[in-house]
Amino acid sequence: MPSSPPTTARLRQQLAFILEIDKLKKVERQSLLTDQSRRENSAEHSWHLAMMVLMLAEYVPGPIDVARALELALTHDLVEIDAGDTFVYDAEACQDQAEREQRAAARIFALLPEDQRSGLWDCWRELEAGQTPEAQLVKVLDRLQPLLLHQATDGVVWQRHGVSRSAVMKRMSEIERHAPALWPLVCQIVDDAVAAGRLTDD
Amino acid sequence: MPSSPPTTARLRQQLAFILEIDKLKKVERQSLLTDQSRRENSAEHSWHLAMMVLMLAEYVPGPIDVARALELALTHDLVEIDAGDTFVYDAEACQDQAEREQRAAARIFALLPEDQRSGLWDCWRELEAGQTPEAQLVKVLDRLQPLLLHQATDGVVWQRHGVSRSAVMKRMSEIERHAPALWPLVCQIVDDAVAAGRLTDD
Repeated sequence: MPSSPPTTARLRQQLAFILEIDKLKKVERQSLLTDQSRRENSAEHSWHLAMMVLMLAEYVPGPIDVARALELALTHDLVEIDAGDTFVYDAEACQDQAEREQRAAARIFALLPEDQRSGLWDCWRELEAGQTPEAQLVKVLDRLQPLLLHQATDGVVWQRHGVSRSAVMKRMSEIERHAPALWPLVCQIVDDAVAAGRLTDD
Repeated sequence: MPSSPPTTARLRQQLAFILEIDKLKKVERQSLLTDQSRRENSAEHSWHLAMMVLMLAEYVPGPIDVARALELALTHDLVEIDAGDTFVYDAEACQDQAEREQRAAARIFALLPEDQRSGLWDCWRELEAGQTPEAQLVKVLDRLQPLLLHQATDGVVWQRHGVSRSAVMKRMSEIERHAPALWPLVCQIVDDAVAAGRLTDD
């Protein structure tokens, strides 16, 4: 009697996806680690963001489905495996970002069984639409996390790219809108950075 | 009139914790990335594990509280910031592991406000006890994740340390107990590794 196969087709698809997303550990972001030794990658950024969901959910008004917010945080950068990280203050790279990310999602999500594939598309659309408290929380923290790293690393990345106060404030407007309790913190960080010459004033 | 302070004491504690845990990105594990370019760090491992919770929860029988399982996965290695990663096949390093990790937890968790601090201790104790389906799921996947990476990287780490079949099988027993549907997969991976000379037979 032949022994049962070690994996089902479903498990094989799931394992292929799990190995594929290992590549997110190779996608470099602009942000530096707090010790400035190297750039952060998108996998560890996603972990850091999920930890911030656990610790800071209280700053977005209204009840939050923590499981959903964590799912959005953990999966939000998967498309960067193909599309790369787009520096938010690089206007040119941002132009075709949506198209590159859509193509990436189509390839990477297709590795999964149908139900889990459509689950990831739901996450992606929810985050793009930004209408749920969970999507708003993740967007807020996805702005705050690099802000905290830039502050902790003396704004060297901002200085390298000549980033201005108004560009940062525009990027942070999601925080003012969805987490007003965090807004004074953001303003203080930006004011301090301008005063120290780490952001240009405009 | 003085302006309101940008942060409360509570937020300052939360931010100090969030910056402190950035150090988990510097803790190296034995596992290599799938492209073998470097060792994996504990922050990106924690992200990978959380992704596996999302994709493979169905293999542990019974209902799973996904938010709780994700919280356990995301926080399970925080103590390594002080205690370092302990290679499971290094018997000597494993001897004082519990004591080192207890001290680390005491220092790192203490950065947080009281309610969140005790929340992390609850996670830690739940995982140590291993009695809930969520703790069992995370333990299963924490064994499976490096197994998949070792398989994908031709077992070079196993070979470097002269790891044996019985050592791996002992480590994997949590999978047999709590996720029997994954057990044939584990046996197949180990059998193949022994046949290829990547694990010593004993």
